[in-house]
Amino acid sequence: MLLEALYHVPRDKWAYAYDTATIHLRVRTKRDDVEQVFAMTGDKYDWDGTYQEIPMEKAAHDRIFDYWEAAVKPRFKRLSYAFKLIAGSETVYMMDTGIQHEGPTPPGELYEFPYIHEIDLFKVPEWAKKAVFYQIMPERFANGDPSNDPDHVQAWGGKPAGDNFFGGDLKGVLEHLDDLIDLGINAIYFTPLFVSPSNHKYDTVDYKKVDPQFGDNELLKEVVGACHDRGIRVVLDAVFNHCGEQFPPFQDVLRNGAGSKYADWFHINEFPAQIKDGIPTYDTFGFFGNMPKFNTANPEVKEYLLGVAEYWIREIKLDGWRLDVANEVDHHFWRDFRKVVKEANPEAYIIGEVWSDSLTWLLGDQFDSVMNYPFADKVLEFFNGGMDGYNFSNEMGSLIMRYPQQTNEVVFNMLCSHDTPRLLTRVGSDKRKLKLCVVFLFTYIGTPCIFYGDEVGITGEGDPDCRKCMEWDPRKQDRELYDFYKMMIALRKEHGALRQGRFRFLQANPNDPCIVYERMDERMHFTIWMNNTGKYRTLSHPMETEDWRDALSEVKVKPKDGMMNIGLDPFGFRILYRKLK
Amino acid sequence: MLLEALYHVPRDKWAYAYDTATIHLRVRTKRDDVEQVFAMTGDKYDWDGTYQEIPMEKAAHDRIFDYWEAAVKPRFKRLSYAFKLIAGSETVYMMDTGIQHEGPTPPGELYEFPYIHEIDLFKVPEWAKKAVFYQIMPERFANGDPSNDPDHVQAWGGKPAGDNFFGGDLKGVLEHLDDLIDLGINAIYFTPLFVSPSNHKYDTVDYKKVDPQFGDNELLKEVVGACHDRGIRVVLDAVFNHCGEQFPPFQDVLRNGAGSKYADWFHINEFPAQIKDGIPTYDTFGFFGNMPKFNTANPEVKEYLLGVAEYWIREIKLDGWRLDVANEVDHHFWRDFRKVVKEANPEAYIIGEVWSDSLTWLLGDQFDSVMNYPFADKVLEFFNGGMDGYNFSNEMGSLIMRYPQQTNEVVFNMLCSHDTPRLLTRVGSDKRKLKLCVVFLFTYIGTPCIFYGDEVGITGEGDPDCRKCMEWDPRKQDRELYDFYKMMIALRKEHGALRQGRFRFLQANPNDPCIVYERMDERMHFTIWMNNTGKYRTLSHPMETEDWRDALSEVKVKPKDGMMNIGLDPFGFRILYRKLK
Repeated sequence: MLLEALYHVPRDKWAYAYDTATIHLRVRTKRDDVEQVFAMTGDKYDWDGTYQEIPMEKAAHDRIFDYWEAAVKPRFKRLSYAFKLIAGSETVYMMDTGIQHEGPTPPGELYEFPYIHEIDLFKVPEWAKKAVFYQIMPERFANGDPSNDPDHVQAWGGKPAGDNFFGGDLKGVLEHLDDLIDLGINAIYFTPLFVSPSNHKYDTVDYKKVDPQFGDNELLKEVVGACHDRGIRVVLDAVFNHCGEQFPPFQDVLRNGAGSKYADWFHINEFPAQIKDGIPTYDTFGFFGNMPKFNTANPEVKEYLLGVAEYWIREIKLDGWRLDVANEVDHHFWRDFRKVVKEANPEAYIIGEVWSDSLTWLLGDQFDSVMNYPFADKVLEFFNGGMDGYNFSNEMGSLIMRYPQQTNEVVFNMLCSHDTPRLLTRVGSDKRKLKLCVVFLFTYIGTPCIFYGDEVGITGEGDPDCRKCMEWDPRKQDRELYDFYKMMIALRKEHGALRQGRFRFLQANPNDPCIVYERMDERMHFTIWMNNTGKYRTLSHPMETEDWRDALSEVKVKPKDGMMNIGLDPFGFRILYRKLK
Repeated sequence: MLLEALYHVPRDKWAYAYDTATIHLRVRTKRDDVEQVFAMTGDKYDWDGTYQEIPMEKAAHDRIFDYWEAAVKPRFKRLSYAFKLIAGSETVYMMDTGIQHEGPTPPGELYEFPYIHEIDLFKVPEWAKKAVFYQIMPERFANGDPSNDPDHVQAWGGKPAGDNFFGGDLKGVLEHLDDLIDLGINAIYFTPLFVSPSNHKYDTVDYKKVDPQFGDNELLKEVVGACHDRGIRVVLDAVFNHCGEQFPPFQDVLRNGAGSKYADWFHINEFPAQIKDGIPTYDTFGFFGNMPKFNTANPEVKEYLLGVAEYWIREIKLDGWRLDVANEVDHHFWRDFRKVVKEANPEAYIIGEVWSDSLTWLLGDQFDSVMNYPFADKVLEFFNGGMDGYNFSNEMGSLIMRYPQQTNEVVFNMLCSHDTPRLLTRVGSDKRKLKLCVVFLFTYIGTPCIFYGDEVGITGEGDPDCRKCMEWDPRKQDRELYDFYKMMIALRKEHGALRQGRFRFLQANPNDPCIVYERMDERMHFTIWMNNTGKYRTLSHPMETEDWRDALSEVKVKPKDGMMNIGLDPFGFRILYRKLK
């Protein structure tokens, strides 16, 4: 057994309470190196009387490791434990004092999960597990009210630039809500809505006021109310890392320097606050002088921003916040943010914008979820031919093992956003590949999100090109694609197995870009077959049962001599299901 | 290179801010497998303009891994990074997206430490880095006031039982402060002082009142004042996991059941609160019905207990709290505890009682330190002949790598306590071995603590035998041992190198229980030589410089032909030093 590969720590994603009765344990071993793993568990104050040996299951793998999992229900909320690993005739024990070939001497040498505290429990909103999100950039979605258009507004559908405007607004959203209902989505994430000079509005000037180019607070309330009436949840963008330079307190600092009563609202390294040799003398988002960074450790700033967070929840019954540049804001701030937000709305959904490993924020005290950019990158790489099925299964395994199950259930999976090229562009405008990506998104673990317009075939390179105006002319929309999206959304919403069922790759082999995987809960069993090549392929997999149907056509599909053979067009897919009860 | 052995995560002890300008990075590799490691660092918003490649140093090792460290000072508080590892002709890169043989494509694939926030910084009290602690169990230290003795008090020096009393009190402590000054300690940790029916007082009845058997609040104030006048800091024991069953709110629950206004102060699983089939129907410490567990998530309980924590800091100018059964209390409670305590006294020292891996509490938001029982266990095992120098160096390396440097500087190292057998008993009453343990304690990293009476040769098995009365009769004290302790304490207090200097094993070999190690800062260089065998041994190590002296005798000691040869009696030691400036 390769001892160097063994890993467990008694904390974070390796040992956590999943609910008030259950602790999840994970152990890592070298890939294909260990045959059996058992969790040796008990209460440290009565080890013999409570001892249980629980077999662990291989839950995922990546390129070089296997990951084993078990759910343990300790009788008295306290858990002491060790692991027993078996490979051939070799037995190895992992415990708090190290790795050894003799069993532990309880309870001194054991790992501990000392007590399940409900207050420390990581709870995520139930609705987010069922949500299908639609991301809207309000300036580019629909112009419902030309009277509030900015000066120099350009004709709808023109070429987006960093600083031009097309007049999209909240009235436009309101007018198109029924289109979204038709599509089937049940949650909207709006990029920023508050007063700001830019088209993206990530440089906020007034946090409590809807930008007049979009409407006003009353209209936002109306939009959210109309959404709620239709079963659509609404999440807004919280830009709390920095403000816009026109934000009055920052203007006060520019005017009054160190004497400003807002001098400590920002990180001013040298007064006056200015750009010096190309670099601001104050901390900013990136090096953008027009986005001064907040000093979120200042109690006044904290009170102000947490007040904003609470204000909108109470004012418009907001369902959650997406947190811009979340990883550059301090942890004390986010902990208190969670308290304030969850108190105002216990079902609020908190999604951090973090592009890299985010576990630090996903331990129950800060965010529920993060924008899953690594998911997008790996899915796109795979369906663009950049890796085989084997490596894809490794990458997905690696991502799943990054976070506790709670986050995995609501991690914000998207394939593109306002900060990346458009999905269709990312797959070289090959609609067949796009569909494979979308099938994967909607049959995978996590909360899917569509970037507005992807469903009708809008293309675009990175910012600003991806921020094109929504296409509302049905003749210019790809209606076939739209119907495909609609169908996939409906399928996911209908079946719990596609949301929370067990995920497993059935086929994911070296040098083969085709994959077969399954999702299963107690009611339904799905198998998804993907020909990720440019040639016709027949994929085969042993199947005992006969009762399969095509989930999109309802046609019966039967295995032959215990083998299911599925012929697939280039970049084709098929989704089969059978009922379990 | 063994890829399975490589480990880094962009958080906790692997990547943390050490101060407002410095981030510490650590990487793990297989032992003796990798020749060079570099941290590739920069600002993600200007990678090329800020790029720096920083060589990492091997900071420690355990049985199967090497640990590399670097301190990085990012120019704009933000750090993106990857690692380059070199073994022979092989170069491997570690980054957020995984391990690969090609370098990263910045900044997307990099690890991130997004921003150094001072508010998130883990700060420990400076004084604790210089402290030598003395643990006092007040019932057993000195009886200064027979008038407050409990009923049925037994003669001083009798056999301790779980439930007997000897009359020790705070007056006794006051009368013996000058003895402690003579010994040289500069901090006291008192086990509980507040009203409670037991002799150990871990079952509190009144959290704001000194037990009348010990004196009163005024007297405690006087004791702490007298300590402060003499440069001695005082830490008390906070028993916040549970109370005693006589605690009035719990009595109210016993009387009024579910109708009690304190019903939610505890975890009552079934009313009435009682012992049923040997198991309490309410959560307790262990299974002790007389120690009902607090519901620290209840805001009333939290307010009450945090009020207690603050009360004693303000009332007697307390210097810190040692937290009983700290790991079974919720994290929300400890986070707020830290805020309240540090606001009342920014230099307060917070030590958790956690016997196993404690990193979860040592990330800056909860404790400063923990009672280092694993240290005691490994030191005792080594000096009792249970492992060779090689394994000992591995075990010490493993413990050092458990925590960030801040904690290592103030981790509460002891060799025994009121919960373990006495030190002298743990080494089979061999004073020579005891001295080796003590030399190691006082020349190692962390804050040392002596259990009262160890310095005069008190023996004792586990609780209750270890809780013997302090021996005050000079004829029955081991004065030679006392002088030895006194000398070691003085040596540690005099030399910063022994407290915060770099630690390194110079000799720690397989099948040899003898060790040589060094500690060094910019002013002093120490080498410590230990013959951990029952035979005379000469230890040799190459030494370039000639200017060594024996730290205890001031005798000059010179190497011969570049080799230092130190002859040592069985279980003998020698401490050499040279001045660097």
